[in-house]
Amino acid sequence: MTEKIVNENLQNQLISWRRDLHKHAESAFLEMRTASLVASYLESLGYGLQVAGEVMKADERMGVPSKEVLDAHYKWAEENGADVDWLPKFEGGMTGVVATLKTGKPGPVVAYRFDMDALDIQEDMSDGHIPFEKGFTSLNDFKMHACGHDGHTSIGLGLAKMVMEQKEKLAGTIKLIFQPAEEGTRGAKSMVEAGVVDDVDVFIAMHLGVGVPSREFVAGNSGFLATTKMDVVFKGVASHAGGKPEEGRNALMAASSAVLGLYGIPRHSGGASRVNVGVLNAGTGRNIIPSKASMKIETRGETSEVNDYIRSQALFVLKGAASMYGAEVEVDIVGEAKSSMPSAELVDQLAETAKTSPHFDTVTAWLPDAAGSEDATYFMEKVKANGGLATYCIVGSDLAAGHHNERFDFDEASLEAAVDVLYRSVEKLSNA
Amino acid sequence: MTEKIVNENLQNQLISWRRDLHKHAESAFLEMRTASLVASYLESLGYGLQVAGEVMKADERMGVPSKEVLDAHYKWAEENGADVDWLPKFEGGMTGVVATLKTGKPGPVVAYRFDMDALDIQEDMSDGHIPFEKGFTSLNDFKMHACGHDGHTSIGLGLAKMVMEQKEKLAGTIKLIFQPAEEGTRGAKSMVEAGVVDDVDVFIAMHLGVGVPSREFVAGNSGFLATTKMDVVFKGVASHAGGKPEEGRNALMAASSAVLGLYGIPRHSGGASRVNVGVLNAGTGRNIIPSKASMKIETRGETSEVNDYIRSQALFVLKGAASMYGAEVEVDIVGEAKSSMPSAELVDQLAETAKTSPHFDTVTAWLPDAAGSEDATYFMEKVKANGGLATYCIVGSDLAAGHHNERFDFDEASLEAAVDVLYRSVEKLSNA
Amino acid sequence: MTEKIVNENLQNQLISWRRDLHKHAESAFLEMRTASLVASYLESLGYGLQVAGEVMKADERMGVPSKEVLDAHYKWAEENGADVDWLPKFEGGMTGVVATLKTGKPGPVVAYRFDMDALDIQEDMSDGHIPFEKGFTSLNDFKMHACGHDGHTSIGLGLAKMVMEQKEKLAGTIKLIFQPAEEGTRGAKSMVEAGVVDDVDVFIAMHLGVGVPSREFVAGNSGFLATTKMDVVFKGVASHAGGKPEEGRNALMAASSAVLGLYGIPRHSGGASRVNVGVLNAGTGRNIIPSKASMKIETRGETSEVNDYIRSQALFVLKGAASMYGAEVEVDIVGEAKSSMPSAELVDQLAETAKTSPHFDTVTAWLPDAAGSEDATYFMEKVKANGGLATYCIVGSDLAAGHHNERFDFDEASLEAAVDVLYRSVEKLSNA
Amino acid sequence: MTEKIVNENLQNQLISWRRDLHKHAESAFLEMRTASLVASYLESLGYGLQVAGEVMKADERMGVPSKEVLDAHYKWAEENGADVDWLPKFEGGMTGVVATLKTGKPGPVVAYRFDMDALDIQEDMSDGHIPFEKGFTSLNDFKMHACGHDGHTSIGLGLAKMVMEQKEKLAGTIKLIFQPAEEGTRGAKSMVEAGVVDDVDVFIAMHLGVGVPSREFVAGNSGFLATTKMDVVFKGVASHAGGKPEEGRNALMAASSAVLGLYGIPRHSGGASRVNVGVLNAGTGRNIIPSKASMKIETRGETSEVNDYIRSQALFVLKGAASMYGAEVEVDIVGEAKSSMPSAELVDQLAETAKTSPHFDTVTAWLPDAAGSEDATYFMEKVKANGGLATYCIVGSDLAAGHHNERFDFDEASLEAAVDVLYRSVEKLSNA
Repeated sequence: MTEKIVNENLQNQLISWRRDLHKHAESAFLEMRTASLVASYLESLGYGLQVAGEVMKADERMGVPSKEVLDAHYKWAEENGADVDWLPKFEGGMTGVVATLKTGKPGPVVAYRFDMDALDIQEDMSDGHIPFEKGFTSLNDFKMHACGHDGHTSIGLGLAKMVMEQKEKLAGTIKLIFQPAEEGTRGAKSMVEAGVVDDVDVFIAMHLGVGVPSREFVAGNSGFLATTKMDVVFKGVASHAGGKPEEGRNALMAASSAVLGLYGIPRHSGGASRVNVGVLNAGTGRNIIPSKASMKIETRGETSEVNDYIRSQALFVLKGAASMYGAEVEVDIVGEAKSSMPSAELVDQLAETAKTSPHFDTVTAWLPDAAGSEDATYFMEKVKANGGLATYCIVGSDLAAGHHNERFDFDEASLEAAVDVLYRSVEKLSNA
Repeated sequence: MTEKIVNENLQNQLISWRRDLHKHAESAFLEMRTASLVASYLESLGYGLQVAGEVMKADERMGVPSKEVLDAHYKWAEENGADVDWLPKFEGGMTGVVATLKTGKPGPVVAYRFDMDALDIQEDMSDGHIPFEKGFTSLNDFKMHACGHDGHTSIGLGLAKMVMEQKEKLAGTIKLIFQPAEEGTRGAKSMVEAGVVDDVDVFIAMHLGVGVPSREFVAGNSGFLATTKMDVVFKGVASHAGGKPEEGRNALMAASSAVLGLYGIPRHSGGASRVNVGVLNAGTGRNIIPSKASMKIETRGETSEVNDYIRSQALFVLKGAASMYGAEVEVDIVGEAKSSMPSAELVDQLAETAKTSPHFDTVTAWLPDAAGSEDATYFMEKVKANGGLATYCIVGSDLAAGHHNERFDFDEASLEAAVDVLYRSVEKLSNA
Repeated sequence: MTEKIVNENLQNQLISWRRDLHKHAESAFLEMRTASLVASYLESLGYGLQVAGEVMKADERMGVPSKEVLDAHYKWAEENGADVDWLPKFEGGMTGVVATLKTGKPGPVVAYRFDMDALDIQEDMSDGHIPFEKGFTSLNDFKMHACGHDGHTSIGLGLAKMVMEQKEKLAGTIKLIFQPAEEGTRGAKSMVEAGVVDDVDVFIAMHLGVGVPSREFVAGNSGFLATTKMDVVFKGVASHAGGKPEEGRNALMAASSAVLGLYGIPRHSGGASRVNVGVLNAGTGRNIIPSKASMKIETRGETSEVNDYIRSQALFVLKGAASMYGAEVEVDIVGEAKSSMPSAELVDQLAETAKTSPHFDTVTAWLPDAAGSEDATYFMEKVKANGGLATYCIVGSDLAAGHHNERFDFDEASLEAAVDVLYRSVEKLSNA
Repeated sequence: MTEKIVNENLQNQLISWRRDLHKHAESAFLEMRTASLVASYLESLGYGLQVAGEVMKADERMGVPSKEVLDAHYKWAEENGADVDWLPKFEGGMTGVVATLKTGKPGPVVAYRFDMDALDIQEDMSDGHIPFEKGFTSLNDFKMHACGHDGHTSIGLGLAKMVMEQKEKLAGTIKLIFQPAEEGTRGAKSMVEAGVVDDVDVFIAMHLGVGVPSREFVAGNSGFLATTKMDVVFKGVASHAGGKPEEGRNALMAASSAVLGLYGIPRHSGGASRVNVGVLNAGTGRNIIPSKASMKIETRGETSEVNDYIRSQALFVLKGAASMYGAEVEVDIVGEAKSSMPSAELVDQLAETAKTSPHFDTVTAWLPDAAGSEDATYFMEKVKANGGLATYCIVGSDLAAGHHNERFDFDEASLEAAVDVLYRSVEKLSNA
């Protein structure tokens, strides 16, 4: 166990960044203010920067807000403290930022991923919720950092500062990836498809909390479920249900048949699977045959193969159900993530490194039971496919309420702990 | 063919009443301003009046708005010209009015029904729509007299005036029934159950338009479909679809199964039937097993027997579907009407009478093809069950757009024609 | 009222023919013995004959038995009294016969249709059933003349005899059509498509019984329902339901979804409709995902248009349901009939004619309520489309038990009555 | 590695027994001949015997054949070599036998389970199938020992002989359990409920083959799936689909809705689950609304808890679906098994023992991937619940074709190997 390496100034800075971001919560592909400030700061530190179309393939983004929403938010960012020099780069929701430091010494390319987006949740505004008590609740209705990505972005900035200050100790190349739209698993694919990790040898993604308490570190979070999110619209033909029932093409019957078919997709012998129709809205009036039915669907699989199977069966079900009733169906993939297993070798290295940090009492190599999905898996799979190593680690943090809860808050001491352990890993891995 | 009997003063009065009512459109059970003005005027003419609980059974009303809506509208009525002496009687949506004239001479009890409610439709506000051009569009958003009940109420008041003026020519008893909530077939039953037509020998309901042009009269509109309107809520248990699927009780699966089951209710050899699920809304989030699903359902039958069969089968389907998925279901009957065939004898008498009116070029005894449903049928069936005669007649009127269209408007000359023919029928029938 | 025109010899002959046919019941497309005896007798009378492929389009037959069944029955016919000269013509189920008499005098072509097939029913063999008591029950297991077509064929032969004897009184051309496979509505179309009635001006089909008592005649049986019979097979892929559920393509799920979809086909505003899935068989073992599901379906419509609508919707449902579950579906139309309304002019003429017969106490022009379907409607629609007249008449007959009952039997006195009225109609219509 | 302990005489006897049983294959609860010969031989060896009602609770049997089938088979057994003294005990399908040896020395109660039933499969009768070539194929049509229980029974008899011969070396109590009706998991529960293993300290069940080759032994077959087999009948009301559709109560619609609901039962977070509707038969005629629909269903779960969940949901689905369509449903549990994990301590002991046998080249402690279900789990769970140890071991055997295949056959050398290893375990465990 060694001494702390994050000094008091940076500790305060981390908290200050985090609270500013929390107050100015921006959800998927709207992280325009956030990205402008991130870019401005990284530039000021001396990093080489690539942003927007340089690090994202526009068409590979999923679930992008409408032009109206993007434009309106751009104005909001302009009026609420965005860096006006950088802001125009991020117009239209191309909000990714990648900072690169080439040390000039031979060594691997080591990359870290930080996600920046908030959720579409209305933050709680009552006593006992620290952001409320301390005055940094979200200014935006129904936008809230309820998953800790405000912390992740701050950690990324803090790590950037330390890396630059200590660059003489480092070798190879360091890449810091600031990703939009992790929620709904919508943004990572567009960065991977743009080639952001094509040259990366070692990749680390990180999350605060997720049930791990403060002062504990997990080097490898295994078993994310692969997932696909679909928005589905059945379109039929309306008619007066009393007068001309034969002229209708009933979108609700198609949707109802699809619901039963979707839940009935067979289990897979290759691992656990899930399917859910979370929302269905259809029809306009009691006496009109419904001409439209909209559904929000989600599939999951223990492996990408299992999820792909469920997804492909779901498409059969949707198309078949539409054609049963003379309707049409449109399926929009609005989010997707793969399953991915951390590289055992990297997990071991990272665990060893974490044991040298004074911020942790407990260091665990593996957290076995996956609860959900993450699109960092796109980066991980790409790096591994290229022969590199990848992991997803967890910096424990005591939570006031669970992730995605309107009273979510984390232990700000974790910010410093995260910068500490990640910086230690840079030193170790870049010199490997 | 005789002379017109409605003088110019009353002609103008009819139009003036109609436009005031159109401007102050009030939908089902909110006809508080309307009822207060109706009651006030009928009282001023010298009728004996019964209102609210005297002529309606509160529990037999269907689809009553919430207390909040009722109370808010009461205030609106107070501030928008209601008769403040009568208004308190109609609080809580007990908006029925019955005026009675006992002539003192022996004779039958002859009753006329006028409906007063508007629809929940946003009126068109553009050129070419006469109410807009002449400045009497509805003051209330999403309330519009788009079916002509404003005209019906005016006709009722006009008839009341003529009857009182000519009472020396009449015999027996004349009843004028002003009914709330015909739309959705929600109000008539409550008046019938309160005994309003228990003593009636001859009953006539009337509608403007419905495809019959100006200067034409139909004495017997046959074959209304019996109907039942149901609001249905399935209640299950929400759970995280990825983490704990087994803890959910899926209200959407129950609703989907019910949709297929409802449309699959067998045909009936006794006549045409219809069933429709016009609206289905379920679920809150993509990854949550839906705990609630709401549906708007309608059944119809060529006869009350056929509709009762469809309704009873629908209840089996709804309850069974709920229990398949461990959910519960609540079914709220929010509207109902019977089928009813006019009395042939009365249809003949009324057709003969209409032929004496100068307002009609064409008089037809029967209109055979029913398009929809009407709850005047409750009154008709009750009167017929007691040995009386009943019919439903149509006073033709050229329409600017179809019933329930946001540009609906009728030919105001029909108001006078309606009062003429109805008054003639009072003279004839009360002296029969 | 005139005298009887069928003499005692022919009376006895009619009964004798009928009992022989009853004893040798042959079902759809197996009427080989019947057809051979019919052809032989008609030839002996001197008629011009066309048979088999001359009067039937093989591909337009529906629900033809397998080659094995056809061949086996051929042998049976050979060994059971078929006319060995004619029999080979009818091999393979081409069992239609048309006899033509050209009088040489100018006049219309008047045609009569007689159906010859039995049902796949096991005849009752107990006391009280006259065919049993008199020793002429069916020799063939699960074949029985339980609808009276044995009588129809006898009547056709009797009419042929009278027509030939009285040919000097007649004009124009007389056609006697002996049709296979009326049951299941499978045979008529193939004769119509072969042009059998292309030159016909007046067409009459006839049925015994159907609820009309002895000594009553109905000249026009209106409102047969159009119908389509389909045999459907869903083919998926079997797999071990425990071990490899993902490898199966579940034909039973497809069929189940189709069942719900079929019953849910909307009503039609153009008239009554029906749909039924009478039989479903699927699967082989409890733990195997079913790879095959077979269904027997029937649609009906008050008009051919309504039935066509139901049938076309049914095909959408079947194909869509198959594709929902990755299965395939084969649909075989095994029977079809149209709706058809008799020509009013011909109904009146026939009723007038019947009134001259001493065999009837009651003559009715129209029987309004249709109970079922008939493929004589193909002939009727064709003749009417060519500008001719057509009807379907009923010769009343007291029944021992309902049609299609295993104890069905009719009043043999009706045979003579039928020949009488039909012959009278030949005289009248051919000379018109 | 020691010498073989099964002498040549016993080797021949094992094969002879097996072939006789194979030739006289008897399926579930019909093992009357088998049980009579087993009882007779065990008695002759000097064991204390309990049979039929002494070791089975009649009502806890599942899927018992009808009385007609039981009685007919009894006669067959009588005529085909059953022991006539013992046979009457097994009338009515109470075909369990338990042999007990009390050594008189203190020690544990050690029990072995052998299943005796054949499958309802028609044995292949062609060259290459050794039972055919050697003349011992099943005399009973559609009864075949296609799973190896003929071998199991022979092994049980062989073990009984060795135990009795070597009883001086043994301590405690030895129980040999001969169970009926393992196929379909129908018989074990009735023996457990009768208390057969209430006093047992160590329990071992055994299977030949299951993918493990000759000369290999697996001491612990983990992870049998819990399962429930249900026969379901929906009963509605038939009616003529054209004439009186409203009078029907459609059992096929209920069954179809149930099929979709059953496959849609949610996954369980506690482990893998399965559900299958393997067979559905409904309806009698194309135009009759089906009044009866029969289904064969199977559920499985990675744990008994998961299976219980699926089963309970299935019952909701079945009952709800019936009531949707006004039908009734009868559910008959015709088979059931639990999940059960072998006791690690016993697995280790047994593996150690097997390593001393000259019959095996490979000894494995655990076989992890369960493919199916076994009702030996009832015994295992009971023994473990009482604080005892239990396992399910596999004696490898090269197979001619897979289990349940009509050409199934095993390597008869495995019989001797099984007796060897089991006898070694008796020595070791009874003296523990």
